[in-house]
Amino acid sequence: MDKITFIGLGNMGAPMAKNLLKAQLNVEVFDLNPSAVQELTELGATSADSLPQAVQGANVVITMLPASQHVQSVYLGEGGILDSVESGTLLIDCSTIDAETARDVSAKSHQRGYGFVDAPVSGGVAGAGAGTLTFIVGGSKDDFEQAKAILDHMGKNIFHAGEAGAGQVAKICNNMMLGILMSGTCEALNLGVENGLDPKVLSDIMLQSSGRNWALELYNPCPGVMENVPSSNGYQGGFMSQLMAKDLGLAMEAAVASQSPTPMGSLARNLFNFHNSQGNGQKDFSSLYEFYQKEK
Amino acid sequence: MDKITFIGLGNMGAPMAKNLLKAQLNVEVFDLNPSAVQELTELGATSADSLPQAVQGANVVITMLPASQHVQSVYLGEGGILDSVESGTLLIDCSTIDAETARDVSAKSHQRGYGFVDAPVSGGVAGAGAGTLTFIVGGSKDDFEQAKAILDHMGKNIFHAGEAGAGQVAKICNNMMLGILMSGTCEALNLGVENGLDPKVLSDIMLQSSGRNWALELYNPCPGVMENVPSSNGYQGGFMSQLMAKDLGLAMEAAVASQSPTPMGSLARNLFNFHNSQGNGQKDFSSLYEFYQKEK
Amino acid sequence: MDKITFIGLGNMGAPMAKNLLKAQLNVEVFDLNPSAVQELTELGATSADSLPQAVQGANVVITMLPASQHVQSVYLGEGGILDSVESGTLLIDCSTIDAETARDVSAKSHQRGYGFVDAPVSGGVAGAGAGTLTFIVGGSKDDFEQAKAILDHMGKNIFHAGEAGAGQVAKICNNMMLGILMSGTCEALNLGVENGLDPKVLSDIMLQSSGRNWALELYNPCPGVMENVPSSNGYQGGFMSQLMAKDLGLAMEAAVASQSPTPMGSLARNLFNFHNSQGNGQKDFSSLYEFYQKEK
Amino acid sequence: MDKITFIGLGNMGAPMAKNLLKAQLNVEVFDLNPSAVQELTELGATSADSLPQAVQGANVVITMLPASQHVQSVYLGEGGILDSVESGTLLIDCSTIDAETARDVSAKSHQRGYGFVDAPVSGGVAGAGAGTLTFIVGGSKDDFEQAKAILDHMGKNIFHAGEAGAGQVAKICNNMMLGILMSGTCEALNLGVENGLDPKVLSDIMLQSSGRNWALELYNPCPGVMENVPSSNGYQGGFMSQLMAKDLGLAMEAAVASQSPTPMGSLARNLFNFHNSQGNGQKDFSSLYEFYQKEK
Repeated sequence: MDKITFIGLGNMGAPMAKNLLKAQLNVEVFDLNPSAVQELTELGATSADSLPQAVQGANVVITMLPASQHVQSVYLGEGGILDSVESGTLLIDCSTIDAETARDVSAKSHQRGYGFVDAPVSGGVAGAGAGTLTFIVGGSKDDFEQAKAILDHMGKNIFHAGEAGAGQVAKICNNMMLGILMSGTCEALNLGVENGLDPKVLSDIMLQSSGRNWALELYNPCPGVMENVPSSNGYQGGFMSQLMAKDLGLAMEAAVASQSPTPMGSLARNLFNFHNSQGNGQKDFSSLYEFYQKEK
Repeated sequence: MDKITFIGLGNMGAPMAKNLLKAQLNVEVFDLNPSAVQELTELGATSADSLPQAVQGANVVITMLPASQHVQSVYLGEGGILDSVESGTLLIDCSTIDAETARDVSAKSHQRGYGFVDAPVSGGVAGAGAGTLTFIVGGSKDDFEQAKAILDHMGKNIFHAGEAGAGQVAKICNNMMLGILMSGTCEALNLGVENGLDPKVLSDIMLQSSGRNWALELYNPCPGVMENVPSSNGYQGGFMSQLMAKDLGLAMEAAVASQSPTPMGSLARNLFNFHNSQGNGQKDFSSLYEFYQKEK
Repeated sequence: MDKITFIGLGNMGAPMAKNLLKAQLNVEVFDLNPSAVQELTELGATSADSLPQAVQGANVVITMLPASQHVQSVYLGEGGILDSVESGTLLIDCSTIDAETARDVSAKSHQRGYGFVDAPVSGGVAGAGAGTLTFIVGGSKDDFEQAKAILDHMGKNIFHAGEAGAGQVAKICNNMMLGILMSGTCEALNLGVENGLDPKVLSDIMLQSSGRNWALELYNPCPGVMENVPSSNGYQGGFMSQLMAKDLGLAMEAAVASQSPTPMGSLARNLFNFHNSQGNGQKDFSSLYEFYQKEK
Repeated sequence: MDKITFIGLGNMGAPMAKNLLKAQLNVEVFDLNPSAVQELTELGATSADSLPQAVQGANVVITMLPASQHVQSVYLGEGGILDSVESGTLLIDCSTIDAETARDVSAKSHQRGYGFVDAPVSGGVAGAGAGTLTFIVGGSKDDFEQAKAILDHMGKNIFHAGEAGAGQVAKICNNMMLGILMSGTCEALNLGVENGLDPKVLSDIMLQSSGRNWALELYNPCPGVMENVPSSNGYQGGFMSQLMAKDLGLAMEAAVASQSPTPMGSLARNLFNFHNSQGNGQKDFSSLYEFYQKEK
């Protein structure tokens, strides 16, 4: 049976790896945090003392890392993945990073005879646990097909966005849109409330009108309008405001590199940045609604 | 049978009045444009030579006018509606204007013993013709119920947004959101395209992800992605870019008056304003996509 | 000797009227606040019980009022200035209001045979006391010349900006620029500090480079860089942040009316608005620097 | 006599090197463009066939390169400066690049025993020719003092901004401020003109009021207001709009890295980006005024 090595067992990586184990796959894990490793070995994973050992004999290597510099170091560093795996291995990076780094790692992987896809996810910790993540994949058609067979065990929607780096670009564009939707929804609801409207009534009207959007449908940022969303739970859980700012920062880097205008996304980044600077980075990103409200 | 006087037979008003005639109601019309009047009288409406005559004996007066100053003059001017109608008449203003004017006309109407609701619409010329408009109504519960019985002949969704002026406020908030959605959607698609993505593929991914919104679902601004939308028809038809700018201007006035922050809506207004200044005001508002594109 | 009636003895009006008394002019004052009136009568002014009495026999009437609605009521209301003064009187409004109201009051003044100029000021309470205000005047050449003879007693620079309303437009444009300068200066200094620079060193460099501007030269917003400015005094004194937001709101109204793009000014308004909403409206406007800083 | 090697003989580098020759210094030059090299050798410079040869025996190496990637390659690449110079050499990089790269090159230079300063310039081609450039220098006090002795031959103001990278940070902050000043000045003048003011009159008023700034003083963007500026010469000459956008892009990268809010600078970048996308990148940056104007 194929051996899959999973590197990076954080909040997202750990439940993703568990879903591979549930599918009866042969999984070896690696992480610098021993307790994260132990949790997976107790569920049937094997483990190794070093990264080179961990990827030894792997047919597929999956990485889930915090940021670009970790991806660079784990793939390209001395004793990193590219130095250690066998020819023909398929490499799947699920981290959310800048597209340029993804293209660079992809090119260097192909030079050495490995397959590579960038496959950032959306769906959060809940989706990772439930195996319902969305994967947005960049890479050749062949690499995509191979990767899809594995990703199907961890997600529900597996999109082929285009060539190498396209997964990152599409995720960045989607998340920039999300930042704009949330900022705009907070702003429109607050304008209504400060002009005497009931936020529930206004939300109902907009949901059936041309203001309808994902944030309003599933994630109303005004406390008390919807149940079971972070805004009705003290903005706990959900998607941290500092991660929204990170993704908007990636969009800015892409925009500067391609000299594309992104005024709305830039402004959204700055709004989240102001909000986070006031100590709200760990709250759910819909807490931006509080930033709009007048102090009582 | 009740007499309904309809004032303002423009692109929206004319088809709305026709739907009242189709419902076999007794409709008198008034407009300064004789050919607009003739079109309605040929369909069974009565008409009058002056506004005071037109509203004589009316139980309900409906107005559909271009902007705040017309509403002020038609209602409050010498020989205007408030000087001419009989006590107990219900006044329904379907114009999209600033909330302050709506509240002022409402208060003066009530002082003289008339009912009044502000009932701006969404759904455009097509919705007006099909009788499927959305009405967003501000006024007392009683006035709303009475108005609803009439508006039902011209629309599909009749919302009660709150007290006097609330219809305008809710419409303004919704349309500010729409301006933000369209700007953001143009921006995200353009960023993707300038980084190598196919706009159709990116749209499909975002539609199933957290970037989903009304503009992307029903009104994709990138030519060729959807059929039967203005972007695939040279940005003809639809909702004129200069009207989007007008509605965003109303949002700015409301925001200045209530000292509410509206950075995203302000920026969207400015983007449409730049675009319109380059001779695009009469195009559909999704033509903002062209503003984002690099000159070939 | 000419009689000058001065209406509106607030923080600005009172010291302005005192400077007219110092110049040995014949001044009658009017204000709803008796202690403000008494302060001036003790210095030699006459007073009256009502506005019509106060302007009786005046050759010149000067008004200094908080906002547009006060100007409308004091000039155009029943028993207001236009109903009460004698033909040939010169009316000088020093309030900062929207240009449209200024043009309206000017037109109605001229219809009744009065001269009128809009003459908003800059220079603050300190300038009002020292008699070094800047007056930015809109009106005919003749009216301007007459007004200048009086304004010279209260100010140092008297500009003729153009026809009626031009004084307000020029002041609004200048103050929008000021809002942009202050926002930008806070932002550039904060970016430097968060990247390791000393704010004094960075300020010195920018002052001798192309970033030089009024805020940096005379009003450094970073505490400790300059002496004798509000930032080195807990942001007390100076020009209140809520007045900056008011002026930026006037700019937005002018921009919406003329359909002019003002993205930078709009954004500055929103930044001050966010800042003020957090309880800082009474601080000096350079306190926006605190809004940029990360919470400690 | 000390040998100075000058690498990068573009629009800026060539006149800078000439000023060193005028000062009777011993200059060796290197550039991939033979005619640029020839121009300098005719004036007394020596030259070499390769970069390693060119820096052989140099006491000081000065580089003036277009962007970060060139600096990385020329300093850190195989056979680059760090591989080729002798211990104790002082390295001066006058390119405008991101601070992170500057810090990285500085650290690697010091590891090998070389001095290093980042010393970006302002003052443009005219200042380079006249020897009146401003140098904004980052590095240790010793390195700064040594570098200053050389830079004095090419510039008028030599600032010590702080430690390694501080030169780049200060230049980026200043130029972000400049982008904001120019955008704001275009916007304020255009708002005035569209509300009936004469741009010369408005400029004069603002110059003596709180809207005063470098762009208004020395570089009025409205054609016809000042003589001998690019706006009165078809926006030819001066500082290219695409270079303004490049510098604002560097500011965005610094802001994303330090998670600093830069809403005004971000917006300015986007305005220049829109403007450049319409084919104006080679015009002087004050041509942004045209972007604000309504199409005739």
